[in-house]
Amino acid sequence: MTTRVPRTRVDVERGARVERPDTVVVEEPLEIRVGETAVTATMRTPGDDFDLSLGHLLTEGMVGSAHDVAAMMHCTDVDEDGSPTFNVVEATLAPGTSLLRPARERTQSMTSACGVCGSASVDAVRTSSRFPVADDPIVLDPAVIAALPDALEARQSVFARTGGVHAAGLAMPDGTLLTVREDVGRHNAVDKLVGAAARERELPLAGTVLVVSARASFEIAQKASVAGIPVVVAVGAPTSLAVDLARELGMTLVAFTRGPRFSVYSRPDRVLG
Amino acid sequence: MTTRVPRTRVDVERGARVERPDTVVVEEPLEIRVGETAVTATMRTPGDDFDLSLGHLLTEGMVGSAHDVAAMMHCTDVDEDGSPTFNVVEATLAPGTSLLRPARERTQSMTSACGVCGSASVDAVRTSSRFPVADDPIVLDPAVIAALPDALEARQSVFARTGGVHAAGLAMPDGTLLTVREDVGRHNAVDKLVGAAARERELPLAGTVLVVSARASFEIAQKASVAGIPVVVAVGAPTSLAVDLARELGMTLVAFTRGPRFSVYSRPDRVLG
Repeated sequence: MTTRVPRTRVDVERGARVERPDTVVVEEPLEIRVGETAVTATMRTPGDDFDLSLGHLLTEGMVGSAHDVAAMMHCTDVDEDGSPTFNVVEATLAPGTSLLRPARERTQSMTSACGVCGSASVDAVRTSSRFPVADDPIVLDPAVIAALPDALEARQSVFARTGGVHAAGLAMPDGTLLTVREDVGRHNAVDKLVGAAARERELPLAGTVLVVSARASFEIAQKASVAGIPVVVAVGAPTSLAVDLARELGMTLVAFTRGPRFSVYSRPDRVLG
Repeated sequence: MTTRVPRTRVDVERGARVERPDTVVVEEPLEIRVGETAVTATMRTPGDDFDLSLGHLLTEGMVGSAHDVAAMMHCTDVDEDGSPTFNVVEATLAPGTSLLRPARERTQSMTSACGVCGSASVDAVRTSSRFPVADDPIVLDPAVIAALPDALEARQSVFARTGGVHAAGLAMPDGTLLTVREDVGRHNAVDKLVGAAARERELPLAGTVLVVSARASFEIAQKASVAGIPVVVAVGAPTSLAVDLARELGMTLVAFTRGPRFSVYSRPDRVLG
């Protein structure tokens, strides 16, 4: 997940300038295909590519279950020098299965007249979930919530703790972390996590908590809802649309989880008082 | 750029739980169209939508100059209740002008056989720049570089300094910030900045520095190169592909710019020793 690169370290105060190689997170494009159709290309950190691909198909609402994907294979491209340049995962759907919705990209490139402004894209952005997270009976001890970011960080690799990588974890109501995944992109970290979890158990991931090292954006809340996760706990700030979506769906949204303090933006009734 | 939302503030240590509305950054989808074709949909912070649209078209290599866009208009959609739900900017190209490359989304949804794995998408991800940033004679005093993050932060709104918003600034070699733009998405902040700058002067933005509050990912370096900006200074970590691209193009890439220290990952000869 990391690589060494040349680096010149400068300290203005000390007037120092040293050449010292640095370790940086690897970022490479991955194309995800279903059959021969490219459904997306994303900049990701290599590793857990099958988790990422399955998770992306699930959280974008393109497949409903891990069983809908019969096989996944890597398919590597080479450049003029014969060295691999680009990674492709090709997923094969189970017999009799087809994509539940088209790839977001295709929807975006549709042409539509201005009278129905944006409706195709609104639909593309808002993937309705089949799972009513509002009904999930999960409740959480505030001390468990406050401890989640440290637990997540403890499960990250040493490099990840030094910067540049986002982490996503799936926790039980007692704070036990079932699975942790890391990526240069926060959406990819969540996709990897959901993909990994969906191989272990059927969706919805009821009774669990999604913990993210990053901000709580609309897409993070959206992906959680599609996976049937009733609680999202973020270290960073929430966005307005993430709050709107959480309130609309009855998802518990916690953000600014730092030290003993956190803020609940939706469904605080699930946090024991 | 911000909105008030309900919030329950919890402090585990003090056993405190108070209801206190919070200010969060607004995140809403924007669809950018050229004529009747949707070229992208992005989650962005409303404001500077024309800068964002123009900047996106420029940094994705779809138009070569601000003059190629004759007009931009807002086109607002309404939901069932008649309230606006989705924003669309429709750009009209100047007579005789056409898109230099198709929208990334269309390339991604092309079908290709596995023998030419990923080539369509590699091309989609890597937008070649027309401007040789390697030849830019800019040189920088290390003290100027170290001061850029504070200068950027001073130009952000009060809320932005409290979390949740990324900033991008365009600086002169003496550290003067010409323009600053903010957005919930770091790519959008750069697009807004380039769009704003491209209305003032022709590309390339030679002799300038792009300062970003976030990490230096591939796409940030890419957008800078397409705009002809020879130096990128990031507060956060760089990714491997950003370093690779900067070294390939001869762009100066500075990251981890914190206090008196920073790290130069490419073309350190432009940093006075």
